[in-house]
Amino acid sequence: MNENLNGNLLVAQSGGPTPVINASLAGVIMEALNHDEIEEVYGALNGVTGILNDNLVDLAQETSGTIELLKTTPGAALGSCRVKLKTEEQLAGILAEFQKRNIRYFHYIGGNDSQDSSHQIYEYCKSKGYEIRVIGVPKTIDNDLVNTDHCPGYGSTIKYLATSIRELACDCASLGNHDLVTIVEVMGRNAGWIAAGTVLARRKGMSKDAPHIILLPERAFNPEAFIAEILECLKSQKHCLVVAAEGLVDASGNLIGASNAIVDAFGHSKLGGVCDYLESLVSAAIQGVKTRVVRLGHVQRTASHFASKSDIDDAFNAGRYAVKMAVAGETGKMASFSRVDDRKINLVLVDLENVANGVRKLPDNYIGENGMSVNVNAFVKYVRPLTQGVVNMSNTLDECGIPQMAILKSVPVK
Amino acid sequence: MNENLNGNLLVAQSGGPTPVINASLAGVIMEALNHDEIEEVYGALNGVTGILNDNLVDLAQETSGTIELLKTTPGAALGSCRVKLKTEEQLAGILAEFQKRNIRYFHYIGGNDSQDSSHQIYEYCKSKGYEIRVIGVPKTIDNDLVNTDHCPGYGSTIKYLATSIRELACDCASLGNHDLVTIVEVMGRNAGWIAAGTVLARRKGMSKDAPHIILLPERAFNPEAFIAEILECLKSQKHCLVVAAEGLVDASGNLIGASNAIVDAFGHSKLGGVCDYLESLVSAAIQGVKTRVVRLGHVQRTASHFASKSDIDDAFNAGRYAVKMAVAGETGKMASFSRVDDRKINLVLVDLENVANGVRKLPDNYIGENGMSVNVNAFVKYVRPLTQGVVNMSNTLDECGIPQMAILKSVPVK
Repeated sequence: MNENLNGNLLVAQSGGPTPVINASLAGVIMEALNHDEIEEVYGALNGVTGILNDNLVDLAQETSGTIELLKTTPGAALGSCRVKLKTEEQLAGILAEFQKRNIRYFHYIGGNDSQDSSHQIYEYCKSKGYEIRVIGVPKTIDNDLVNTDHCPGYGSTIKYLATSIRELACDCASLGNHDLVTIVEVMGRNAGWIAAGTVLARRKGMSKDAPHIILLPERAFNPEAFIAEILECLKSQKHCLVVAAEGLVDASGNLIGASNAIVDAFGHSKLGGVCDYLESLVSAAIQGVKTRVVRLGHVQRTASHFASKSDIDDAFNAGRYAVKMAVAGETGKMASFSRVDDRKINLVLVDLENVANGVRKLPDNYIGENGMSVNVNAFVKYVRPLTQGVVNMSNTLDECGIPQMAILKSVPVK
Repeated sequence: MNENLNGNLLVAQSGGPTPVINASLAGVIMEALNHDEIEEVYGALNGVTGILNDNLVDLAQETSGTIELLKTTPGAALGSCRVKLKTEEQLAGILAEFQKRNIRYFHYIGGNDSQDSSHQIYEYCKSKGYEIRVIGVPKTIDNDLVNTDHCPGYGSTIKYLATSIRELACDCASLGNHDLVTIVEVMGRNAGWIAAGTVLARRKGMSKDAPHIILLPERAFNPEAFIAEILECLKSQKHCLVVAAEGLVDASGNLIGASNAIVDAFGHSKLGGVCDYLESLVSAAIQGVKTRVVRLGHVQRTASHFASKSDIDDAFNAGRYAVKMAVAGETGKMASFSRVDDRKINLVLVDLENVANGVRKLPDNYIGENGMSVNVNAFVKYVRPLTQGVVNMSNTLDECGIPQMAILKSVPVK
């Protein structure tokens, strides 16, 4: 292995952004500036699309103030894409760009599709005898990558959701004696990690705190059991707060809401979504109940104003670590988190091919016996290190009190 | 006027809670403890309901830590209600309770219905010769009370919304070249203050920043002009972010969405809400457009984790001021904000009867010419003092990193 590989570094972002995706970008840039082997630090705009179109920017032109602000800027600062590499033509195009720009370090910040792209790029370059260090940086609010303890982005999303639900529950509980059912739809098409994470809204030892019911994609939805659980909750509480993952399915595996098309004002049938379906079900089944629906949508993955400090650190450190390991001679890997114990989680490398395309579901031991709850002790022990601390946003506020976001100069590479 | 009136103080909360409603409660309690004339400090649970049912708690039993935490606890800590006083029987019941508990100071924290209740209670007590100091404390995220510069609660709600929209726009803008229309439904049934406040999401001088379109209840919705505006925006931007007030109406004054009933999975027609209607309209009118909907629901009025520091201070100081003025001999009034200039906004008193039941719409000079925007310069000048600063939440986090909320001991008054 040639440990001293001189050349340029290219970083790109892909897939759905997270509240801390740009903290990883900041980590890559900051670390790259430390190494003499790395000559230029480039970013590709909109992921592999920017590589294929020679659409690169010079990241060394960014100020340290901008790089610091990246840590609390949501969205993909370099732009994202949803391109799955399929053809040898694409791979050849990427290699040609690497050769043209003398790219010897490539870091793709993304989820499992992106790690798959990195893996293909790594294999292709190797087969063509082009030396390059490819180390992926994990990113997904879904927390569903395999071969890592957790994914940067997840901790911030559940911290924001759990905070919002604890706050919402204060409001619900203060409104008197009407039976009130609140339905909060959260992200998670394939796995229940996000829905499960909202259990942090419950205060310690308060088993009757919201969320009272958590509906996970890992368990088939049972309408009768669901209504029975709500009625039981309303008996002892003033209100019942339900968290539902958007990927909830029935016993046949059909998405809830999707199989019950709504006809809209224009005569088109459309997906009502889980929360609308559940609201209709509750209203039809429980006489006189009041319902509320909250659909935070993409705000779940952009709420950087209340990001988890530990998550920002994880994202930043994963970016730094990827560069450090690449300079040290590693390639074909992804930066991954490995838990020693509750207080110690290390960065390690795993093979890209063992991450690409896998999906990690919420394990059975984290799911409550009734299938509509979380096994609190085991799950909270796992998740607690991921949601620690907050950033004091005072210094980022503009003259109207709204947090400023990093804006890259995006100086094109000529 | 008898300036030295000895007796007990009663505070209560009413209507829809705000992120800072409990900061006013904290202000009332803290100030009450400073005055020898005030013997006991009681809270009524669930507003006037608690007065009528002799359901009072002793607030002097709460710790200073709890009172401090009230400043960032959403929901009504004493419980709220939606009772409009109608009968002399109710007023007689309230007076009887005041006499039984020797209540000589009464502070109702609420919106225009609550100020109306305070006014009726004040008049009734006066007509029966019962001496009491009634000073209301304003509260509403809607900012639609008359005879005050602004209402505590409003600043925090628009700070959270503008922050969320600026964050969301980072995500939308980073996703490449698909035409993307994002619709964010915000509160505001009668007035467009909240929708207008989201304009703070725009960075200074960036007229093409989100929100690109703001639909206000003060202007009749025009579908053709709306679609034309979106198309114009998509031409120059990657995406178009629309903010719509829930109280949007058509030219006949009918609520948008309400007149276009959706038939749900159970065959019931239901209100689709503004955002669902607008999404359907956009999808039908613009070929191949992608749409996203965000419905923050009641989270808009509970996001204390990012409350405006100036709003918390206003709410707290309004509570203190109400008590101070009552002790000084004032009655039949509400604490109100009077603006001297951008940097100086004073607390003053206004007559309850001049606040009760009024609704202040967004004035014409704050509304943009096309009726789908805000007159930025004038409006931002008005709103800027209300959204300054944030509280560092680090000290309120529990062991999982989620903000703790104040829980009153609620020791019953025997």
